[in-house]
This record gives sequence, C-alpha cells and structure tokens, in this order.
Amino acid sequence: MDKDEQEIRELVSTWMSATRAGDKEKVLSLMSDDVLFLMAGHAPMRKENFAASAAEVPNQFDGTSEINEVKILGDWAYIWTTLTVIVNPPGGGRQIKRAGNTLSILRKESGRWVLYRDANMLAEVKV
Amino acid sequence: MDKDEQEIRELVSTWMSATRAGDKEKVLSLMSDDVLFLMAGHAPMRKENFAASAAEVPNQFDGTSEINEVKILGDWAYIWTTLTVIVNPPGGGRQIKRAGNTLSILRKESGRWVLYRDANMLAEVKV
Repeated sequence: MDKDEQEIRELVSTWMSATRAGDKEKVLSLMSDDVLFLMAGHAPMRKENFAASAAEVPNQFDGTSEINEVKILGDWAYIWTTLTVIVNPPGGGRQIKRAGNTLSILRKESGRWVLYRDANMLAEVKV
Repeated sequence: MDKDEQEIRELVSTWMSATRAGDKEKVLSLMSDDVLFLMAGHAPMRKENFAASAAEVPNQFDGTSEINEVKILGDWAYIWTTLTVIVNPPGGGRQIKRAGNTLSILRKESGRWVLYRDANMLAEVKV
C-alpha cells in the first residue's frame, strides 16, 4: 500500500479512536482550519462550530468506519466510507445509532493529511 | 476563468437544463459509467439504477444550482454546490421541494468532464 494511502487510513482510524475516547483536541487536530462539514438539514459547519458543538455535548460516542475507496490526487485525496456512529447520552438516555456513507476531501498541509471537506449522509437506524 | 472550471460550470448548468427538460439521455451522458450516487437512507446508486429510476418516474423537475467551490486537481476535480430541486408529480400531485448541499467528484474521461461521485445532502423543505 502507498504511503499516502496508509497515512489516510491511519487518519480515519485515529479519528474514530479519539472520538470514542472523547479526546476532542485530538479530533480537532485532524482537520484543516478551513474544514467544512456538510450534512442534510443543516447549514455548513466550520471548525469553530465543530469545537463549540463538541464542547457542549457530553455524549459518549462509539462507532465503526469502513473505507470503501481512497483516491490520492497529489496533495489532495478523496475517500468514501461507510460509517456507523452510536451516541450514548449521559445518564443512560436513549442510545441513537446512525449509519450511512461519507464522502470526504482530504488535503496534505505541511506534510500531514487532514480533513478538508466532509459530506455526511448518515441516517438514524433502529438500534 | 480557467478552461476546466468553465467546462465544469457548463456541465452543472447542462445537467440542470436537461433535468428540467426531462432529457434523461442527456443527463446520463454527463456521468461516468462508474458513477456512484450517495445519499442518506439509501444504498449507493449506480448508473443503471439512476437510469431505471428516471425511466419509471414521470415527475417533472425544476430547480437551481449554485456552485460554491470548484477545485481542479489535474484530470480530477471536486465541486461543492447548493442545490434546490422542485419535484412536480404528474396530474397535479403535491409539489415537493428539496434543498441542501452536494459534494461531487468529477473526472475528465476522453477529454470531457463527467460526474464520478455524488454526495447528495438535500432535505425536504416546506413549499
């Protein structure tokens, strides 16, 4: 496997493990300062919105990510993944499971791959 | 404006006009044979699924597309758009309006830009 592809796969797996561990600073370090998160029914979200939302939500997250496609285009890349996210609210509230596809643009900044654009097509599924 | 960016903007505007005109063959000619359409709550759709779905649905479509970002990466590109689609069922059924963001990967095949990956994050909005 190509070194860039390997680094991108590590980025995805680090994102998942940091999310599970609740390590918000780590997750923020994996995205560009110019990142944009796109999802249905919401305005595009920037890094500061992601940070604010992570700071106010005490949920515990779990999930899995399967990479279906990685395409390197020089210092840019796109990946298509199938993602499952399980949200456990504090105090034993109702668990929510969301699953679906993501299409993301990555960029190499100062020699390091980071998330640049993220299209999130997850939908709630019955637990 | 760069020639590739101009061709990509023309692809988007041709897609919209062919969709409005119900010209399904034209729309199919604007995508790669290996295209994949991703959306929430559905399995990924291939070109044959798109063609079958267009053949069986007699709806009339209208809409607008605003291109927020075009990034050319050699023979590849990505675009981020804000799309509004109005679906008019035959016989005067209830009009449906969907709006939201798309993130798409384009590819130059035989010197011609075509759609290769499409992340559709449209959600229904009140008409």
